[in-house]
Parts: sequence; C-alpha cells; structure tokens
Amino acid sequence: MDEHSGHGLGVSKARLEFLVDGIFAIAMTVLVLELKIPEVEHHRSVRELGSSLLHHAGTFGSYLLSFMVLGVLWYWHNRRYHYYRRITKSILVAELLQLSMAAFFPFCAALLGQYLFNPLARSLYVACVAVYRVAGHAEWVGARRAGVMIPELSDEEYEMHRKRGVRACILLTALVAINIFNCVANVMG
Amino acid sequence: MDEHSGHGLGVSKARLEFLVDGIFAIAMTVLVLELKIPEVEHHRSVRELGSSLLHHAGTFGSYLLSFMVLGVLWYWHNRRYHYYRRITKSILVAELLQLSMAAFFPFCAALLGQYLFNPLARSLYVACVAVYRVAGHAEWVGARRAGVMIPELSDEEYEMHRKRGVRACILLTALVAINIFNCVANVMG
Amino acid sequence: MDEHSGHGLGVSKARLEFLVDGIFAIAMTVLVLELKIPEVEHHRSVRELGSSLLHHAGTFGSYLLSFMVLGVLWYWHNRRYHYYRRITKSILVAELLQLSMAAFFPFCAALLGQYLFNPLARSLYVACVAVYRVAGHAEWVGARRAGVMIPELSDEEYEMHRKRGVRACILLTALVAINIFNCVANVMG
Amino acid sequence: MDEHSGHGLGVSKARLEFLVDGIFAIAMTVLVLELKIPEVEHHRSVRELGSSLLHHAGTFGSYLLSFMVLGVLWYWHNRRYHYYRRITKSILVAELLQLSMAAFFPFCAALLGQYLFNPLARSLYVACVAVYRVAGHAEWVGARRAGVMIPELSDEEYEMHRKRGVRACILLTALVAINIFNCVANVMG
Repeated sequence: MDEHSGHGLGVSKARLEFLVDGIFAIAMTVLVLELKIPEVEHHRSVRELGSSLLHHAGTFGSYLLSFMVLGVLWYWHNRRYHYYRRITKSILVAELLQLSMAAFFPFCAALLGQYLFNPLARSLYVACVAVYRVAGHAEWVGARRAGVMIPELSDEEYEMHRKRGVRACILLTALVAINIFNCVANVMG
Repeated sequence: MDEHSGHGLGVSKARLEFLVDGIFAIAMTVLVLELKIPEVEHHRSVRELGSSLLHHAGTFGSYLLSFMVLGVLWYWHNRRYHYYRRITKSILVAELLQLSMAAFFPFCAALLGQYLFNPLARSLYVACVAVYRVAGHAEWVGARRAGVMIPELSDEEYEMHRKRGVRACILLTALVAINIFNCVANVMG
Repeated sequence: MDEHSGHGLGVSKARLEFLVDGIFAIAMTVLVLELKIPEVEHHRSVRELGSSLLHHAGTFGSYLLSFMVLGVLWYWHNRRYHYYRRITKSILVAELLQLSMAAFFPFCAALLGQYLFNPLARSLYVACVAVYRVAGHAEWVGARRAGVMIPELSDEEYEMHRKRGVRACILLTALVAINIFNCVANVMG
Repeated sequence: MDEHSGHGLGVSKARLEFLVDGIFAIAMTVLVLELKIPEVEHHRSVRELGSSLLHHAGTFGSYLLSFMVLGVLWYWHNRRYHYYRRITKSILVAELLQLSMAAFFPFCAALLGQYLFNPLARSLYVACVAVYRVAGHAEWVGARRAGVMIPELSDEEYEMHRKRGVRACILLTALVAINIFNCVANVMG
C-alpha cells in the first residue's frame, strides 16, 4: 500500500523532496559565487576596499533579497508538499518547471545586481519568480482535482493555500506587466 | 536480513541514491553558472542589454534543453532504481559511470551553447547522453541476470524498461554516428 | 502525533536539517572555488609554481581556517538541533538567517584570503561569524521559552549551551568591535 | 538506546553521513567547473575546436582520473562507516579532516590538469589523497580501540580493512616521497 502510494508514477515522494531541497540549497549558496572580490591598489587601505565594495552595493542587496525570496519559496514548498499522497506526472512536470526557475534564479539575481536600474533585468527577475509561483499554484489546484491529497488536508487549509496562490499570481503578473511596460517605454524613449 | 540486502557489497542503496540525487541537483544548478552576465555600456538601456542577452540565446536554449534532459534522466533513474534489492559491484560501476557523465554534462551544455552549429560540440553533447543511457541499460539487463531485482517487478515492467532502453540506445547511437559523420565532413570540406 | 510535532508550522524538522546540511556541504566545498590556478611561464618548473602558490599562501590559510570554522559551526548545530520538538516560526527565521551567513561565508573567506591585513576584510569575516552565532543563541534561548524542547533535554545541558552561547557572543562582539576600531584608525591615519 | 547510540557526542551518524555524501557529490561535480570552454575563431570549424580541446587533454584526463579517485574513496567510506555504532570526537575530527581533503581535491585536480608534468602539482595531488587515506586508516583503527564498532563486524572483516589501510598508506607515502624527491631534483637541476 505504502509502496503503491510512494511509487504511483515510479517517482518516490522522498526523492523528489530530496532533489528540491538539494537544488534550493545549491541555488542559495551559488548566489554568493556571483559576488566578485574587488581589486584594489593598496591592500591594507580600508577606504579603497570599502569604496570598491560599496560600488557593488547593488549586488549585495540583490544577494540578500534573493536569499530571502528563495527561503520564502522553500518555506511554501514545505507547507504544501507534505499534503500530496503520491507524485503524479502533472506534479512532477510542475515541480521540474519550478526547479528550473529556482536553478535559474542566481543568474537573474546577478543580472539584477549589476543592472539594478535596467527594466529588462527587473522584468527577468520578477518573471522568474512569477513562472515559479504560477506553476506551484497550478500544481496545488491540479493535485486536488486529481484527488492525490491526503485526508488530513482540511478544506480551510486547501482554500487558504489556493487563495494565497491566486493573490500571489495576480500580484506577480501585475509586477511583470509593469516591468515589461517600463521596458517598452525605455526602448521607445 | 534487511541489513544483508542493504549492505551486500558494503554500499547502502540509500547512500548511492543519495549520491545520485545530489549530483543531479548540483549538475542542474551548475548549468546556470555557465551563463555569463553580459557587459553593456549604458547600464539602463533595455535595447543594449536585450541585444547582449539575445546574442547568447544559444546558451539559454542549451540551458533549458539540458535541464530537461537531466530531469528526464533523473526521472528514469527513479523508475528503475527502486527495483534493485541490493547494490552489486556491476551496478555500482555502472552508476558511477552514469554519474561521471551527469557531472560532465554541464560542460557539454556550455560547449553546445557557445558552438551551437559546430558538429564536434553536438557530437560530444549527444555522446555524453549516449554513454549515460548505454550504461544505464547495461545495468538494468545485468541486474536481472544477477538476480537482484525485487519480486514486485513484473515481467511486463522489466520488458518495458528493457525495450525502451534498446530503442533509446539505438536512437542515441544513430545520433552520435550522424554527428561524427558531420564532423568528418566538416574537417574534409 | 508524530505528524503534528513534525509539521507544527508546516515545516518538517527533517527537511530543515536537510537544507542546513546541504548548505554547509556546499559552502565548505565552494570555499575551494576561490583558490585560483596560478599562471606560470615554465610549466615544469617547481620553483615558479611553488613561488606562485606561496604568493597566495594567505588564501590557502584562509581556506583551512574557514573550513574549520564551518566544521565547528556545523558541529554545534548538530548538538542543539535534535533537542527541538518542532520548528516554530522563530526557529525557521533564525535558521534562515544563520544559513544566509553560512552561504555568505565563502565570500568573506575569499576576501580575507586576498586582503589578509585589511581591517575591513577582517571585520566582515568576524561579523559574519558573529551574526551567525548571535542568531543561533537567540534561537536556543527562544526555543526554550516557547517550550518546544524535548523532555530529554536536562537543565544542565540547556544551561551549558546557553552559557557557551553567551561567552561566544561576547567574544565575537568584542572581536568585531576591535576590528571596526582598526577600520576607523585605518581610515583616519 | 537507539537515541543514545545515535547521539553519543551529540552528532547523529545519519547527519555526518549526509554531510560526507553531500561534499563528495559536490566535489565530483565541481571538478568539471575547472574545464574551460575554449575560444576559437571560426565557430563552426571542427578542426579548430578539436585542436583547442585536445590542447587541454591533460585537464580532461585529470578530470576522469579524479572522478574515479573520488568514487573509490566514497566506496571505501561506505564499506567502513556503517560499522560504527556512534560518532566519537576522534571519528568526527578524522572525518572533517578527510572532508577538507575531499573538498580541496578539485583544486589539486585542476592544478594537475594544467601542470601535468610539474612534480609539485603531482606531489600536491598525491599528498591530498595520502592525507585523506591516513586519516581514514587512523579513524578505523582508533574506532576499534575505542570500542564503538557494532558486533556484526567480524575480526576478519576488521583485519581486511586494517591491512588494506596499511598497504594503501605505505603505497601513498612512497608516492609522495618519490614526488617530493622529483621536486627537489627539479629545483636543484
């Protein structure tokens, strides 16, 4: 029975969870690889090293923000994932899509860090989170329809996550739209 | 008993699974490290940043394709691995060979991204997947012969995976042959 | 019951442990990525390669020190984490803050390696450890107040960890203060 | 009882195993990051790309060798680790020392790849493996003396691992000595 629920599609729930946690751990750590050690002339000068680091303040800000974003996405994955009884093909595809966005996120973060005021860099950053969140929302609603939720999931809990998902998707889509609009204005202007 | 099946060779099935999942998680995330942040003159110009990014469109396409390839390979590993009762020396060697290809894959993906129309880059990319798949197929057939499959594996399931393996090996070998032929033509021409 | 204690906040204790171990494993390995292969003229000359490597001795020293620091931090995480019955929101926030420092640590180590005698590099290095340790101490004391410790935790054990935490926080804060003072003196002088 | 054996020092055996597997997975994947994508003038020329890649054949050879070395070290860790009943301070220190060598290994591999005929690069490579193996051997012998082996470990099995360890340590020490001798000869000559 347990064997069956765990291996419905031949994908164990534990291993997919494992892959997700691994990719989040790596994405969170890889963010820091984009921070470059600055070159300064006088090695012992605090002023020079400080101003070099301050010059890349955007990169550090982007690092902190991105670490927090990944932390929050991981937290929400935790809150929903344990309600699935088994992994269907739809859930697997949605999870892999989310993972591809999570793994792509360090690139978006580094791009934003270097081009903080470029609407295109902002659009890509927000779009990456938006695709992640929309895929996660579709997974949640689809899993309920496919009937793979465990009985312990109450209707209130399901609805809470569904409503939160709708709000997040609307907000993120609006942010993407605003940023794309800024891109168009930038190209036109 | 459980101790014995888990430690036939002294390698626990769980730890090998763990190593596999870890390497896949890292390979999937490391792919993105090959994407370079472009340098543009006017930091706020969408047009400049956009054309710089488009210039590396091949790299992004290669990233997406490679993430999908790794996802599919991981999925198939999942579907077969849980049928093994224990890890034999042959399985361990085959798994390590597959892992060396999975870990090597980000290099092939980056090479393909930069030299999309170079037959050698394509050959290496396809050959990497082909070696992975042939090793996986040999592992599957060998494990059956060595009698290490769990009783829950039906003959239909075994045959399905075997036939799929044969087809995949033929297809990939053909792709490698075509690409090597293209290499020869390129050197000659 | 087990389900409840594991999923108080919807975050399983095992998965958070997993994320922590993953980030530590990566941070410890990523340290080495900051070590650059030197360029020398005569490829077979031991003298040239040796003096090039010695020239970066600071980086190697910083690597060893940082690996040890991460090892000790991981060890202390081990000693305390298994006493928590479940993960509260405060514990999650404190853990994520600690993880952001652990993931940021390779950057501080590389900065220190290159600017061993720069007070700013030293300040950042020590501050990173200090923030980690203060967050860990707050987590420990807060967890007791929130009543989420398992009954097996004796008062002596709790007090031992609490006192050690207080001493470590005072020591690290003093080190940060001294280094900041050196920074000020360096800028002034 | 299980609680006690697992948490003798406050370090769970599972988590240390986890850290080891994680670091090995990362070290094996990070090896490939040292392989650089070559720059060639004519993007579609197989001849140019081929000769560029061949020019770095040493790096590829070093990659393959190093992946195999790490695979073998991981395999031997597997064979011995499950015999420990709990983690003592000595085992933890020996494991961390081994991990620092495993994490340092990609640097040695990259150095060897670029300076294949430099005795210093060879010395560092062999010394890294030697330190790992000596620490592992000391751990094994020390664990028996401390009486932390599970009863299932037969005397034959213990002796087999001990003798293998002695032989490996002698062989590796001899290799290090030969390479250091070559270094001295190179500096003198």
